[in-house]
Amino acid sequence: MPHDLPSLTDALRFNADGLIAVVAQQYDTLEVLMLAWMNREALAATLESGHVTYWSRSRAALWRKGERSGQIQRLVELRLDCDGDTLLALVDQTGVARHTGRRNCFFRAIRDGEWIEIAPVEAAPEILYGAG
Amino acid sequence: MPHDLPSLTDALRFNADGLIAVVAQQYDTLEVLMLAWMNREALAATLESGHVTYWSRSRAALWRKGERSGQIQRLVELRLDCDGDTLLALVDQTGVARHTGRRNCFFRAIRDGEWIEIAPVEAAPEILYGAG
Repeated sequence: MPHDLPSLTDALRFNADGLIAVVAQQYDTLEVLMLAWMNREALAATLESGHVTYWSRSRAALWRKGERSGQIQRLVELRLDCDGDTLLALVDQTGVARHTGRRNCFFRAIRDGEWIEIAPVEAAPEILYGAG
Repeated sequence: MPHDLPSLTDALRFNADGLIAVVAQQYDTLEVLMLAWMNREALAATLESGHVTYWSRSRAALWRKGERSGQIQRLVELRLDCDGDTLLALVDQTGVARHTGRRNCFFRAIRDGEWIEIAPVEAAPEILYGAG
């Protein structure tokens, strides 16, 4: 059924920049993939297409996940926290998550008091995006 | 071993308010519990004590998780994302997560185009905090 977007967004508390934080979690393995942001337009695009679309703060533009790399995130379920200021997107992600070629973004952990890379690279960035 | 905090925080990109987003995930079930924020002081307190301490934006004060409710989060592992602007805290949480008496914050999901509560209350707030 079509989403009643005004009714759905009424429950959300966007920040002063009109954004809400979104935690993306792989729906079956429960791996936390990334934290990103949506504005109302990105949320509408996500709900309409079923593919997760974020707002890129660095590029100040809609960021349809995977439009360059092919690593799309299909939306499985969208959840909202008690404060209404964070979304949890359960997604089915194709391949690696990010430009670093890893499946999730959280590949550094503290070991013996310093940050150590703990996740292997699964696809080289030059393969994902093409050399140069 | 003691943490070299300046060296650890060098890798972090705090926002204009001096904060970094923290996704808390239960280390064994992989349930996403909540999103909160830390400043340098909260991070130092977390690493020193092994109990997760956030910065409460609403109270503008350190928020030692569980100091009122007893629902503490023991830090199991701290991870950092590729951009350096989000932490993933793998924690072992005692009991329910939040003032709503649910184990995690994300208890609403979209069903038939509207937000529906999907997680049962596990402990009444008046039990957690005392009546009145």
